[in-house]
Amino acid sequence: MIETISQTCIAPINIAVIKYWGKSDEDLIIPLNDSISVTLDTNYMFTKTTASANPSFTEDTIILNNEEGSKDNIRFINCLTEVRKLASCSKNAQTVEQSKWKVAIVSENNFPTKAGLASSASGYACLVFTLAKLYGLDTDSSELSALARRGSGSACRSMFGGFVRWHKEEPCIAKPVAPSNHWPELCCLVAVVSNRSKTVGSTEGMKRSSDTSLLLQHRVKNVVSLRIKAMEEAILQKDFVKFAELTMQDSNQFHAVCLDTYPPLFYMNSTSQAVIELVHQYNEICQQVKVAYTFDAGSNAVLFMEKSELGRFGAVFHSVFSSLPASEFFKGSSFPLEQVKDQFLDLKSNDSTKGSVQYVISCDVGEGPKLA
Amino acid sequence: MIETISQTCIAPINIAVIKYWGKSDEDLIIPLNDSISVTLDTNYMFTKTTASANPSFTEDTIILNNEEGSKDNIRFINCLTEVRKLASCSKNAQTVEQSKWKVAIVSENNFPTKAGLASSASGYACLVFTLAKLYGLDTDSSELSALARRGSGSACRSMFGGFVRWHKEEPCIAKPVAPSNHWPELCCLVAVVSNRSKTVGSTEGMKRSSDTSLLLQHRVKNVVSLRIKAMEEAILQKDFVKFAELTMQDSNQFHAVCLDTYPPLFYMNSTSQAVIELVHQYNEICQQVKVAYTFDAGSNAVLFMEKSELGRFGAVFHSVFSSLPASEFFKGSSFPLEQVKDQFLDLKSNDSTKGSVQYVISCDVGEGPKLA
Repeated sequence: MIETISQTCIAPINIAVIKYWGKSDEDLIIPLNDSISVTLDTNYMFTKTTASANPSFTEDTIILNNEEGSKDNIRFINCLTEVRKLASCSKNAQTVEQSKWKVAIVSENNFPTKAGLASSASGYACLVFTLAKLYGLDTDSSELSALARRGSGSACRSMFGGFVRWHKEEPCIAKPVAPSNHWPELCCLVAVVSNRSKTVGSTEGMKRSSDTSLLLQHRVKNVVSLRIKAMEEAILQKDFVKFAELTMQDSNQFHAVCLDTYPPLFYMNSTSQAVIELVHQYNEICQQVKVAYTFDAGSNAVLFMEKSELGRFGAVFHSVFSSLPASEFFKGSSFPLEQVKDQFLDLKSNDSTKGSVQYVISCDVGEGPKLA
Repeated sequence: MIETISQTCIAPINIAVIKYWGKSDEDLIIPLNDSISVTLDTNYMFTKTTASANPSFTEDTIILNNEEGSKDNIRFINCLTEVRKLASCSKNAQTVEQSKWKVAIVSENNFPTKAGLASSASGYACLVFTLAKLYGLDTDSSELSALARRGSGSACRSMFGGFVRWHKEEPCIAKPVAPSNHWPELCCLVAVVSNRSKTVGSTEGMKRSSDTSLLLQHRVKNVVSLRIKAMEEAILQKDFVKFAELTMQDSNQFHAVCLDTYPPLFYMNSTSQAVIELVHQYNEICQQVKVAYTFDAGSNAVLFMEKSELGRFGAVFHSVFSSLPASEFFKGSSFPLEQVKDQFLDLKSNDSTKGSVQYVISCDVGEGPKLA
């Protein structure tokens, strides 16, 4: 009897600071514009995937978060087919043989899925990376990113650590802008506002925007390329103020496009709005941009800042949005909270904000996928 | 002793269906783009203004909603100065003399001010119209609209009944598109969501958008003129579906521009969002666009429909957004409510929608300002 081959890997989530919204090719998942993201560390949030193969398996199977996934999922099939194609061209006869075996995939996200926390990004990046390891392929990360893209567009960015740009031009792959250790002062807080699933998924939402939003066309043609250039510069120069302003403006413009879609798409809720208002008030008190927010297709906030700001902002954020003890509210990397004082005491919570953020995960910029 | 001269007039509010947002001249109040509005009847909502003058008055005074207004308000002064200028050029010697007297203005809105219900529009239209009556001027409405514009941009549109277009080109006046009796089937429900004042006023908000929103520039240059043309056609042809779609798309685009502003402007709230979602669901059940929403710089919704739809939509709206008896919930023109049935029963309220709309005012398309 032939022994089952198996590999287990983990992959990070990534947060877009220049957003991807809209495809020029639905099947190949070619984006309307370039995007830039930050890969988060896998200390707390990650997808973990085990891929196994054996000639006795009778069909490809997938278990996602302990539930049987659909084998007919075209995106899963696309990724699997593409990696198998690579393996079948290997010079190693064993790899070629193994690529014919059916696989069993078990994948798990340790964070709310389909709530705007990029679960499909880490998920498909992990799937492709794990399959590549299973077959012992030495394909480079950029090429793997193109395969992960077939599962979920933003998954291609999770194939690298640090700061990553997804280029829309052929071969439509992600490339690093700067590695994970480039800007060690940068960190973020992920505020989990709601774990409700989205009402309109990203795929359907971005199609609707492409079809109906006049503002999206303008964004794609005239706005994004300048912002991509400016964002790359801000990252390379570690210019936090520029990075933060571009991040906030681009998040807002993405949600503006959603609102300009017909019928309109609402991904942010009143808590998201309260987070935005708090960040602007906080920055105003600081008389400098110290914190930036960004929201994907969901209500959760991702807040970027430099580590020197964590203790002060974390304390303010905790006092406004939670009644839980700090030890329960904050997860991920630990940091010392300061006491809220001076003008920051004016940033009061009210009945509608208190308790509206469930918990916060503190993260650093992190590495790409790896063996578990 | 010379007797005091006095006139009392009322003026309507107007609801923009192609929105005005942004000025090319802050002082003269020249808009970045044309806009189109519908004037509402004055059965329930109106501004009522009394202007009095007497040579013994020692200063110009204004009382707004029972509170002393600022005499230094530049917009009030501009309107007053412009009407006096007209009066001082009159062939009637008495008018010329009266234009030198100080005036006492008492003005009242019978609806929430500064909550996106266009209180300044009806207010300044009424001020200018009443002053013109006080001096017995026979100036035509278009010319008066240019004077009202100096008080509040959208006030120029309240100088006419029916359907009105404000032209940005010199002399920057409003002109009727169609009179109030043109489309007698059209009516609207004004849903008062909140009577809180706006956090960022329109004047400051539109300046911030002009300064920072890249999407506003595109809207002004490439979107609005086509929509103005299409909206005029829809009105002249009484094409409700076209009218409704343009109205909703333009409301959404205006709020998208607000979100693209930096820092972003939020005028709608979670109740506004629930209204939008209800309208789209309702239209989907009807398999035709039967109701349209529009939101100005506030959370209140204005819902347009044809009168044949009032009984059914009113009943659904009432069941979703209120626990009050219908007799308390609906104000303005009365209409018979139907029973909610069939698929409309699925449009359920929940804890967050129930009670979130305070009351609803039913209106027809109405006339311009007139003597009270």
